[in-house]
Amino acid sequence: MTAKAQDSLAEQIAQHLAERIIRGELPAGERIGEVKVTQALQVSRSSVREALLILQRRHLVEILPHRGAQVSALSPRHVRSLYELLAQLYAMLCRATLRNWREPTQLQVFEDIQQRLHACLAKDDIDAFVSHSFELMRAAFPFADNPFLQETLENLLPAVSRTYHLILERRRSEMHRLVETFDALLPLLLIRDEQRAVQLLEAYVRHNCSLVLNALADSESAPCA
Amino acid sequence: MTAKAQDSLAEQIAQHLAERIIRGELPAGERIGEVKVTQALQVSRSSVREALLILQRRHLVEILPHRGAQVSALSPRHVRSLYELLAQLYAMLCRATLRNWREPTQLQVFEDIQQRLHACLAKDDIDAFVSHSFELMRAAFPFADNPFLQETLENLLPAVSRTYHLILERRRSEMHRLVETFDALLPLLLIRDEQRAVQLLEAYVRHNCSLVLNALADSESAPCA
Repeated sequence: MTAKAQDSLAEQIAQHLAERIIRGELPAGERIGEVKVTQALQVSRSSVREALLILQRRHLVEILPHRGAQVSALSPRHVRSLYELLAQLYAMLCRATLRNWREPTQLQVFEDIQQRLHACLAKDDIDAFVSHSFELMRAAFPFADNPFLQETLENLLPAVSRTYHLILERRRSEMHRLVETFDALLPLLLIRDEQRAVQLLEAYVRHNCSLVLNALADSESAPCA
Repeated sequence: MTAKAQDSLAEQIAQHLAERIIRGELPAGERIGEVKVTQALQVSRSSVREALLILQRRHLVEILPHRGAQVSALSPRHVRSLYELLAQLYAMLCRATLRNWREPTQLQVFEDIQQRLHACLAKDDIDAFVSHSFELMRAAFPFADNPFLQETLENLLPAVSRTYHLILERRRSEMHRLVETFDALLPLLLIRDEQRAVQLLEAYVRHNCSLVLNALADSESAPCA
């Protein structure tokens, strides 16, 4: 999620704030004052307001009438809710991929991303790992050919990144688990074993969800710095 | 989707434009010029830009870099995609309701809305019917207790309204079908028959989807006025 030259100013501001939220520098519940951001980044107030609407769409910010914007909650209830929805949407994407590929060569794209994930693992590069892992999901979009599913998932990804950050900062070994899951998933796509593929994905999402819940409990019980 | 006094100006503009898109007065692909809206509604350009971001979140508008906003496509592919995602999300909501109610009195809220739907039917009031039908869905939100599912569904509703308008304007008799579906669904919630409840919902969503596709085909083959 790095800003590109063609992005609008509002998009660039949104991505800057998103990264700070994802890394936990802006914690849940923190107020994001329009004036403060306007002054800190030397941008117009209207660009900041637009950026906040973009972040609202991406589930990172809540905008309350007459009270302004604040960083979205990250409670156990929110984590469970997010992963429950993700499990359904990933399963939908997985079923579509499994049913709609025509030539095995179409699945090559997944293997290429897998190799990049293995490389990130070897270099212990968390940020690159997280962004490549989302590429795996995006590579499945053409098989589902569903713009609403695609937009919904894209809008959820920043919130997912935020929870991944919580896990991977603490337990880098978890990167292995994603790679192993996908090593096991690819052959199931090839033989179109829908039941086992969806089960594998669901188990993976459930496992991540409990890791995030544990990390959250640890961070809440940790003494304040 | 009527603007309320406490809504921000951007929200009010968004709702005004949303109603025009839902009613088909602003057709798919139509450009929405910021300057034109600014002049027509006598509002600031920044409020219009914010309104367009709100409409993007609600899937009614696409914002293209350097090309501005246009009304989202409403092709057969889009309709199928929307209903496919809806079917999954409604099923998720239905399962949660069915599993999580504790006292039968908690289901009373659905019966109350059902009665209002019957009243709208008797008065042939399409607009009220559509908005009450969404209340049925919202009444299930507390059972799922999932803010991400809730936001995702709320953001999809305007696009659903847009397709309902296409059906109900043409075939008012379809209002009966929704009421009948819910008349049949309520007892299934009560006896927690998950399989039949989800099947009923899926059949209903599939039926609506094909009605919309037919209406779309009719409107495309109709001679231009």
